[in-house]
Amino acid sequence: MASLDYPPALRRMIAQLKVLPGLGPRSAERLMLHLMGDVPRVANLVEALQEAAQRVVACPECGFFCESDADCELCFHPQRQRHLICVVEQAADVLRLERSGAYRGLYHVLGGRLSPLDHVTAEDLRLESLSRRVVALGAREVILATGSDVEGEATASFIRDLLRGIPGLMVSRLAQGLPAGGGLDHADELTLYQALNGRRECS
Amino acid sequence: MASLDYPPALRRMIAQLKVLPGLGPRSAERLMLHLMGDVPRVANLVEALQEAAQRVVACPECGFFCESDADCELCFHPQRQRHLICVVEQAADVLRLERSGAYRGLYHVLGGRLSPLDHVTAEDLRLESLSRRVVALGAREVILATGSDVEGEATASFIRDLLRGIPGLMVSRLAQGLPAGGGLDHADELTLYQALNGRRECS
Repeated sequence: MASLDYPPALRRMIAQLKVLPGLGPRSAERLMLHLMGDVPRVANLVEALQEAAQRVVACPECGFFCESDADCELCFHPQRQRHLICVVEQAADVLRLERSGAYRGLYHVLGGRLSPLDHVTAEDLRLESLSRRVVALGAREVILATGSDVEGEATASFIRDLLRGIPGLMVSRLAQGLPAGGGLDHADELTLYQALNGRRECS
Repeated sequence: MASLDYPPALRRMIAQLKVLPGLGPRSAERLMLHLMGDVPRVANLVEALQEAAQRVVACPECGFFCESDADCELCFHPQRQRHLICVVEQAADVLRLERSGAYRGLYHVLGGRLSPLDHVTAEDLRLESLSRRVVALGAREVILATGSDVEGEATASFIRDLLRGIPGLMVSRLAQGLPAGGGLDHADELTLYQALNGRRECS
């Protein structure tokens, strides 16, 4: 006798859920049981998913999310400094930097980082539009806010070379050092090396 | 200047995701970023959710899931023993017991367990249909497979009393003892007490 399983429609639902990041077979099953216990709520979830998929696009300028029938909140904001461009790997990085409160310029989302092992080359990133924007905006500074891991450093280095010829442009990199709230006991050697090298005189 | 956030449609999507079990604000945001990075896949997820919500119902007999246009795979299975009914708290318990391979009778899903603290009383459980089924099927044994915690025991005890008057019916309870693969060092006192009390002669 074949062993019993959930009806096909529920198995297809589990299959769609378990491939999402952070979910496995067990959490997908638990999610399915939760949703099937409150079917009217499934309609709300479906509506939210459909609306986002239909209305939200990447801004052709900066690459951050914007609704297709509205101006990009970043590129069209009247109070942002338009001579500053901060280059990040992905859209989520924009909000991380915004929440720091330390930056009020424009952004440029690359959509990834150079990673030969994952077959991500310069053509896969939004680099051509970066050069074009820097010139069109007459930018005075480009801040490279890619990660401080190997791929992030390689991507920053590549962009530094790419923008080198543009007159009057400063290209900078986020500072590296001790993370806030972290003691020296949690810092690795490279972090301490960079924290020492980047030390600043106390005011 | 107001701090930047995702466009409204994405905020609504995060709001719908973060209330799901096992997901919090951060994992909901990560899920949204994943889905927006692969918009065609959102349609597959939406279709699976809608199909399940529309087609799958609780079988009016056993309470397990079945598709509304098909017979219940449990109640209408020709090879299942129809004089045995196993009572479980929730639909997911059916599959857990099925995977053990030790049971080939019918099931009855209560849809919960008695829990005064959560305001779950006998009227909230599928108890009336249980009595009716036991009589209609001429069941010889009802196995109470509710949990071995306080509420599960109370529910089992309540059902034992409920079915007491039915002639020729045996009411049984799942054995309690050491879980498979567990040493005595991981077993609590109550488990060891029950394992000792339920000991069986070696064959």
